[in-house]
Amino acid sequence: MTRPNLQWLLASRPGGEPTPANFRLVTSSVPALKDGEVLVRHHYLSLDPYMRGRMNDGKNYAAPQPLDAVMIGGTVGEVIESQHDAFRVGDTVVGAGGWQQYSIVNVSQPGLLRKVDASRVPLSAYLGAVGMPGVTAWYGLTQIIEPKAGETVTVSAASGAVGGVVGQLAKARGCRAVGIAGGRDKCDVVVREFGFDACIDYKAHKNPASLQAALAAACPNGIDGHFENVGGVVLDAVMQQANAFARIAMCGMIAGYNGEPIPMAEPRLILTQRMKVQGFIISEHLPLWPQALAELGERVARGTLKYRETVAQGIESAPEAFIGLLKGRNLGKQLVKLA
Amino acid sequence: MTRPNLQWLLASRPGGEPTPANFRLVTSSVPALKDGEVLVRHHYLSLDPYMRGRMNDGKNYAAPQPLDAVMIGGTVGEVIESQHDAFRVGDTVVGAGGWQQYSIVNVSQPGLLRKVDASRVPLSAYLGAVGMPGVTAWYGLTQIIEPKAGETVTVSAASGAVGGVVGQLAKARGCRAVGIAGGRDKCDVVVREFGFDACIDYKAHKNPASLQAALAAACPNGIDGHFENVGGVVLDAVMQQANAFARIAMCGMIAGYNGEPIPMAEPRLILTQRMKVQGFIISEHLPLWPQALAELGERVARGTLKYRETVAQGIESAPEAFIGLLKGRNLGKQLVKLA
Repeated sequence: MTRPNLQWLLASRPGGEPTPANFRLVTSSVPALKDGEVLVRHHYLSLDPYMRGRMNDGKNYAAPQPLDAVMIGGTVGEVIESQHDAFRVGDTVVGAGGWQQYSIVNVSQPGLLRKVDASRVPLSAYLGAVGMPGVTAWYGLTQIIEPKAGETVTVSAASGAVGGVVGQLAKARGCRAVGIAGGRDKCDVVVREFGFDACIDYKAHKNPASLQAALAAACPNGIDGHFENVGGVVLDAVMQQANAFARIAMCGMIAGYNGEPIPMAEPRLILTQRMKVQGFIISEHLPLWPQALAELGERVARGTLKYRETVAQGIESAPEAFIGLLKGRNLGKQLVKLA
Repeated sequence: MTRPNLQWLLASRPGGEPTPANFRLVTSSVPALKDGEVLVRHHYLSLDPYMRGRMNDGKNYAAPQPLDAVMIGGTVGEVIESQHDAFRVGDTVVGAGGWQQYSIVNVSQPGLLRKVDASRVPLSAYLGAVGMPGVTAWYGLTQIIEPKAGETVTVSAASGAVGGVVGQLAKARGCRAVGIAGGRDKCDVVVREFGFDACIDYKAHKNPASLQAALAAACPNGIDGHFENVGGVVLDAVMQQANAFARIAMCGMIAGYNGEPIPMAEPRLILTQRMKVQGFIISEHLPLWPQALAELGERVARGTLKYRETVAQGIESAPEAFIGLLKGRNLGKQLVKLA
């Protein structure tokens, strides 16, 4: 029996914003398993801003996505065939299956596929709050910002899969958490559902001075820690309110993903406020993942860590959902439901 | 007997570049000593870029220099009268006597005046390589850059009081040291006297691409650590050559001292190269000064740490010498000889 597998390949590299023409949908058939392999049927595909960077050919922190190959991406699903003793049919697993319906994983290589418990935590959360985005939030907050109780921590893209976790973990550590997000609906979720102390809708501010004033009002004691998912005017505004010895974790610069360099307006503030500004890539800190996942999983299971998901239906919808993510159309974690 | 004391006061705050009109020369007379005080005759006054920042009224890392008060500044000299048992006439001392010929110090407050040994190290060096500039270099290199043998360390204003020490300490730790300075004469000193592996004359490059190419040629293995004394195009060029996990110590932004903010061209590199960019002010790290001064003093005494001085003659010359310092006219540590 041959099993058809719908796959999205990278057809061409985008010059600026990606378009549907950059992707090509093909149907392959799933081959027979070899020894040591398992076949995973994907339930959800994760869409993440980092994928835009991989679509470029230039200098980046990771190898470029090859042309005419299946787009990379995190997936959760279930094992439906196994040629390895450690995995059984029915196991729920998280891996990097890519933009396709099925993937074959050689599990004799450790680390490629991880069994997860879908009884206490919804399977899709392993792509969000209890997955790479959650660990990203945990790492930047606890290892770079290192917040102390009573400090103020800000985060951009605060309703997103990473940002929402940053603020909730900061609150759990006794901090004032202030989000920045694009739109009143997103800010409402950030404050009412995620429990941030305040959230600023940057789209409601026509100029940097207005954004700065709103940030100053929301952060009466200044800013001690900041988690940057965006870059540009938001980062500039935060830096103007930074206290001495502020720490900025640089996680994403989505505004610059389309190639145009976006300057930092006043780097001199790094000196005058003795800031630390540090970039990181979560895949380089694997030894800390278990500790992070333990806290995140426990909080989600107990209901003390909230998240939102935007779910596109079917593999065919992946490119449009990804383009929408880059434009900020999603609210919370962007997923594609595949089964 | 009254003793006249020539003093420079801050007469007005400069809008952009300081001019002689911002300073006023007055003559006061040294009053009689009270109990616990000593009278110091200054031999040298130190002129430093940080003074420009203090002349502003705005947000800065230190209190502004008050108007109509004696300009602040480091001094070395000798005790010529003492009303405290711990200091004797003839003691050589370093302190913060300001832009004047004499100062009275209440030495019952610890830390204001420090006795130094002028037999192994020239007195003037306690204002440079074995003083605040040297400790600044030591701190940024050892505590922020934390260089490993075999790495490449770059430093801007490399012939200056701070920059020259940075590169020599990096060489002593097994690194490749590359300087950036303004002018062929300065670069010659950096390479031939200070022993850097290379030095780039940024004035010889008409555009950023040319400067970047020169930096790439001088740093064939990229840049692992950078000590920033200037900001602007030099920092931008360095960031383009930075390796993964590069560390940048932000010590000075002289190009921005006149008020105009100078942007950082491509902050996204902080993320893609997982850099750490950290500002510091050396006066906030007093516990490390003894360790730093021990290494610096020993190296100067043994002749393994070189430095240059530019010495203006007489208290009257201080404003012009300071203005020249901000324009890069000095080579090495800028001093004013007072006695």
